[in-house]
Amino acid sequence: RNAAKLMGANNVPSENVINTILEKTYYNVETHNAESVDWFTVLIAQVVSQFREDARADDSMLRSLNDLLNGDIIPDFIDKIRVTELNIGDDYPIFSNCKILYNRNELGQSQGQDGLEAQIDVDLTDTVTLGIETRLLLNFPKALFAVLPVSLSVSIVRFSGTLSVSLRKSPAVPKAPNTVPASSNRSANATSTSNSDDANDGTTYLSFSFDPNYRLEFDIKSLVGARSRLQDIPKIGQFIESRLRKWFTDRCVSPRCQQIPLPSFWPRSKTTAVVPPATNANTNG
Amino acid sequence: RNAAKLMGANNVPSENVINTILEKTYYNVETHNAESVDWFTVLIAQVVSQFREDARADDSMLRSLNDLLNGDIIPDFIDKIRVTELNIGDDYPIFSNCKILYNRNELGQSQGQDGLEAQIDVDLTDTVTLGIETRLLLNFPKALFAVLPVSLSVSIVRFSGTLSVSLRKSPAVPKAPNTVPASSNRSANATSTSNSDDANDGTTYLSFSFDPNYRLEFDIKSLVGARSRLQDIPKIGQFIESRLRKWFTDRCVSPRCQQIPLPSFWPRSKTTAVVPPATNANTNG
Repeated sequence: RNAAKLMGANNVPSENVINTILEKTYYNVETHNAESVDWFTVLIAQVVSQFREDARADDSMLRSLNDLLNGDIIPDFIDKIRVTELNIGDDYPIFSNCKILYNRNELGQSQGQDGLEAQIDVDLTDTVTLGIETRLLLNFPKALFAVLPVSLSVSIVRFSGTLSVSLRKSPAVPKAPNTVPASSNRSANATSTSNSDDANDGTTYLSFSFDPNYRLEFDIKSLVGARSRLQDIPKIGQFIESRLRKWFTDRCVSPRCQQIPLPSFWPRSKTTAVVPPATNANTNG
Repeated sequence: RNAAKLMGANNVPSENVINTILEKTYYNVETHNAESVDWFTVLIAQVVSQFREDARADDSMLRSLNDLLNGDIIPDFIDKIRVTELNIGDDYPIFSNCKILYNRNELGQSQGQDGLEAQIDVDLTDTVTLGIETRLLLNFPKALFAVLPVSLSVSIVRFSGTLSVSLRKSPAVPKAPNTVPASSNRSANATSTSNSDDANDGTTYLSFSFDPNYRLEFDIKSLVGARSRLQDIPKIGQFIESRLRKWFTDRCVSPRCQQIPLPSFWPRSKTTAVVPPATNANTNG
């Protein structure tokens, strides 16, 4: 008798694996047309809609925004910033033009079988508004010469960009230097460098990032107060805009990317559910 | 000053929410063409390829198959079953014809904003082979009258079916009655019935199931032994085929579905990575 064993093709170099995948899936990177992803737009919209429902009963987004805008160093002309209102919008991102491309960077460096990614255009026209209250501190001719209460409305009115998405069995790239693996982070025990041959825990990672040429448009209005010195309001608006933009760039804009460990999708008893049968009224409909 | 608050549209009934989503995403369920998903086929193929690499160095699939085939009750004409070999194939599932449809069942029962799902055709032509050894027990004219060693090769050569996928903020349907929430199960604390208004922990669930009209084709060969009683081999093959089919049906075939809790995809520092810059050789290429 043969001992238990696994049969399979020999290991082949990374580039061959990628070419074999493209051949067997009938995808020619050079000639394949971009595909529409309207169905994906709808599924994501449904989740966004449900998140908005929940967010209305939850102040955690307001708290996070307050922490973000008051974190690090605030310019000496701005007092503490209070986010008093949040309108989370009512429109949905539209995804389009999905293509498979080589990740040239990784392929060139032969970093394992991570050479293919999907690129998708994302476009969101919506109005996501932060109501902000702070005080403008005038330090000339002397420190705290005047203090003017200011109310601003800062709106994100447009986002468009190119999203790159890939699925990988191991993290493709090292953690950002400013991150510390937390014990609750499922990727903490996984391979942390791309050139390591260590086996990881079998987790699949979804990686995504946006191309640096993204567009993020703001609309900033002064609501009340400080009418006498409107020329100073833009400085506060610009500070808040730059804070929000930096938050996004530091996490999601290439060369930065998000690497999210995915659960196993293998069918198991414990993740099985049963859809109840439709009522008679429905089955006749 | 106003107290901190969230602004947003009023709650509207589930069907209105669904119609609003379809309107704002420009998707007409009645008239929208099915979309190709070749890009998705490629991303999944890349993951499958990586899983196969790992599986070659790992006996856990063999062990699971042994447990599955020997679990519950084995007919009295079959001795213990040993899976001695596993060939995990070398082809990839092809996804096509993706459409958004109402989940009539849920919509009719007004089970929250869960009324839209994607349906995708899946087709896999591959050869996934189990090498199986057992003994045929002949209990006539008396118990254990004869014992014949049998070697079989059981191959899955074709799968095709319609996959339904949806994303939801809460489990849409109750757990299957034979499942017990484990403490390690992230959905254990979430709403477990579809009609409950309890808030859950904010987890998004990916649900998927296959239409009952799926096709799963087997090819069963006798390898050695029992040549004198070949007419009994099919009984063993049929038993193994029915075990594998039952495993799939019990977990993934409508009305059963898999509900997988997803991690948060919100960009965070701890999930941020940095792609190293390309080398000069690559940037010139």
